[in-house]
Amino acid sequence: MAAVDAEIIAFDVFGTLVDWRSSIAAALAGVGGRAGLEADWPAVADAWRSRYQPALARVVRGERPFQSLDVLHAEMLEEVIAEHRLQALGNTERRELVRSWHRLAPWPDAVPGLTALRARHILTPLSNGGIGLLTRLAKTAGLPFDCVLSAELAGTYKPDPRVYALVPAYFEVPAGRVLMVACHPADLQAAQRAGLRTAFVPRPREWGPAGAAPPPPAGVDLVAGDMTALAAQL
Amino acid sequence: MAAVDAEIIAFDVFGTLVDWRSSIAAALAGVGGRAGLEADWPAVADAWRSRYQPALARVVRGERPFQSLDVLHAEMLEEVIAEHRLQALGNTERRELVRSWHRLAPWPDAVPGLTALRARHILTPLSNGGIGLLTRLAKTAGLPFDCVLSAELAGTYKPDPRVYALVPAYFEVPAGRVLMVACHPADLQAAQRAGLRTAFVPRPREWGPAGAAPPPPAGVDLVAGDMTALAAQL
Repeated sequence: MAAVDAEIIAFDVFGTLVDWRSSIAAALAGVGGRAGLEADWPAVADAWRSRYQPALARVVRGERPFQSLDVLHAEMLEEVIAEHRLQALGNTERRELVRSWHRLAPWPDAVPGLTALRARHILTPLSNGGIGLLTRLAKTAGLPFDCVLSAELAGTYKPDPRVYALVPAYFEVPAGRVLMVACHPADLQAAQRAGLRTAFVPRPREWGPAGAAPPPPAGVDLVAGDMTALAAQL
Repeated sequence: MAAVDAEIIAFDVFGTLVDWRSSIAAALAGVGGRAGLEADWPAVADAWRSRYQPALARVVRGERPFQSLDVLHAEMLEEVIAEHRLQALGNTERRELVRSWHRLAPWPDAVPGLTALRARHILTPLSNGGIGLLTRLAKTAGLPFDCVLSAELAGTYKPDPRVYALVPAYFEVPAGRVLMVACHPADLQAAQRAGLRTAFVPRPREWGPAGAAPPPPAGVDLVAGDMTALAAQL
């Protein structure tokens, strides 16, 4: 594998940099508890997130027009509410839950790892969250990006190749000078097809303490245990 | 004038946050000197910048398609080279000069002022520079933005109203919760027409030590002597 010489590092966010499951389960427990509800809140968080890939895939396949992730999150939440009998949640609570995706806790290594990487690289998210969501999330979590790029700017979602093409286009660099970092093999495989270099950072706890990480995808350029280890490799 | 309650502060960059004239004159002197040329380099910088508004206005009026500011800067530079007899500059030097707009020195108050403002607001540039240019400029200058918005995202240039509309659209806030900060009255007047709040920060030295600032535009919400004074007002 050739040495990686990246000017720009693009990061997946949900799962790769932030622990959405703990944060969303806590938001559900807080909002649900105020509404007098009891539930297995981590399981509700998992049910919500499980609807994510199928909903976005319909946009990528052209079966529905692009709408922001906030709109899709709100739609998915309605289904989860029906399935888990959470109808006692009012509209204000539902809006608050959709907005809780704008405030997610980073994995412990994310801020120190990105801080180290930022000394010699331009850092950007490249996420399916919108510009507003990602900016608020990065500010709350303290993630030190240099700019904020989102699938929203391509009017589609990952793994559509147009999303990955945003980074070399905006920075006027060859795709091979962009490194995509993610914990999800499909994201990295799509980045590879778009000509980007790739780094796999497994997050075995993304779906909770009983979870496991998938194996590194074939052809990945780098594998690192966390973001500080990635910074040490680059 | 009603109190300004802005969640997001959008900044003009060239002139408002950075001293393009000193930086471009220094770049010209360095590149030109290596090519054996002598010239009044600040005057050459002024000649280059003077072509800026007319070139961008043709795009805003629809007389030519949108192209990045780097492309327009390169075109303007060719005219300046002919006018000032700088044909000894080679293609490599010309490209280096266009790229010098990605590395401009901030005014002394810009970094401390933005650092103070960032504690309670989301900060973004809203400039005619592209995403790549602005990201590299902010990183080099140490300007602590939370994201990077550019006229490039609207496919036009300020003062086209579609540029100002980017900020409330991406952040899903009313336009009145966005504060536009600039040293150029026309920029602020266009922001007002788009419903944004406005702050005028005069930069009398933008065009050199003999310059003077225009008076504040009518209806501006705030006037501050520099960015630290603006932070104290908000």
